[in-house]
Amino acid sequence: MVTPPSDRVRLRRKPERGHYERATVEAIVDAAIVGHVGFVVDDQPYVIPTAIWRQGDRLYWHGSSASRMVRATADARVCITVSRIDALVLARSATDHSVDYRSAVILGTAHIVVDEAEKLEALEAFVERLYPGRWATLRPTRPAELKATTVLWTELSEASAKIRDIGAHDEPGDETWPAWAGTMPLTTVIGDPVPDAFVPDGMAAPPVTLEASG
Amino acid sequence: MVTPPSDRVRLRRKPERGHYERATVEAIVDAAIVGHVGFVVDDQPYVIPTAIWRQGDRLYWHGSSASRMVRATADARVCITVSRIDALVLARSATDHSVDYRSAVILGTAHIVVDEAEKLEALEAFVERLYPGRWATLRPTRPAELKATTVLWTELSEASAKIRDIGAHDEPGDETWPAWAGTMPLTTVIGDPVPDAFVPDGMAAPPVTLEASG
Repeated sequence: MVTPPSDRVRLRRKPERGHYERATVEAIVDAAIVGHVGFVVDDQPYVIPTAIWRQGDRLYWHGSSASRMVRATADARVCITVSRIDALVLARSATDHSVDYRSAVILGTAHIVVDEAEKLEALEAFVERLYPGRWATLRPTRPAELKATTVLWTELSEASAKIRDIGAHDEPGDETWPAWAGTMPLTTVIGDPVPDAFVPDGMAAPPVTLEASG
Repeated sequence: MVTPPSDRVRLRRKPERGHYERATVEAIVDAAIVGHVGFVVDDQPYVIPTAIWRQGDRLYWHGSSASRMVRATADARVCITVSRIDALVLARSATDHSVDYRSAVILGTAHIVVDEAEKLEALEAFVERLYPGRWATLRPTRPAELKATTVLWTELSEASAKIRDIGAHDEPGDETWPAWAGTMPLTTVIGDPVPDAFVPDGMAAPPVTLEASG
């Protein structure tokens, strides 16, 4: 642990599942395509899924400049949560059923990237983290496209990770109960690329750098 | 559409992606294992991933009776969001990159299931929706286990679904730009079951009813 976790992100229950090292949080964020962005409007919480990416100690997301999520989160308090399930966990009692998972919860204030060059760099990082080498092959972004897109970020400073990776676990004495127990691993796989109608014969799909996540 | 969507859940941007029919929302919820529960404490939004399940027009989740999420959501306003990515979508310009996805956003007030029999029924429905036939094979739930678990629900009445399923889409004129465009399908697969150390030889893993989701 580099810095003590704030009380807002510290795990109180099952503290053995809590991790506050920056590297652990970063690894979970970097393995995800989507984060769930929480914000508040008129005392009502909203949670919107959106693509996220990281550059150093900043967590980024983007949206149409006209979107409700973008307008509601700008300069506002947000919570961005990333999660993935690694396995279904079956036990011999109902309440010991679980899942093995990795999640990260980041609390912060959302900032808009105002500088146009910085915004373009952020979008390049977003494309390159999923499709390395692709940015240079694309039709260059037009000023109007850049203007229609808002890029936001928050610091990765107040964050916690939660990991369950212990598989099946029964109450003492349940081991002999005649029900199957164990794990069923879940994996996200990328299927064969499907080119659109305009891809010339023989043009290969680009590589994807991804420990895919839902 | 059965009832007009509230202004809080109606899609203002890209309204063609919005769906308000109950069946569409239910199908997205029923395909998910996990929802992201948003709630507010001291003006700070929090988003916590947790297993969800549906019974009729109620969306359920559960947690330890001692958990912060359970205590903070009881009788409070929540937003529960379910999402899955069906495909990566690559276009010939950066800003036309996207994902095909299905998501549902449910706004409501969280209610605790107080009645013990009703709570047990809800947990049975939770186990059975993932593992049909399994409940009857399990070591019966003890009163202390039931007490340590809190089951919550909210109505599926104020909800919207958002679906993108159009694959690659370029700006007019970009079709001839020499970059690959198309889709890469993402699928979650359930791997071979891994029994724990106490499963007798020859005992088969139970069936899983799941269009798996991250």
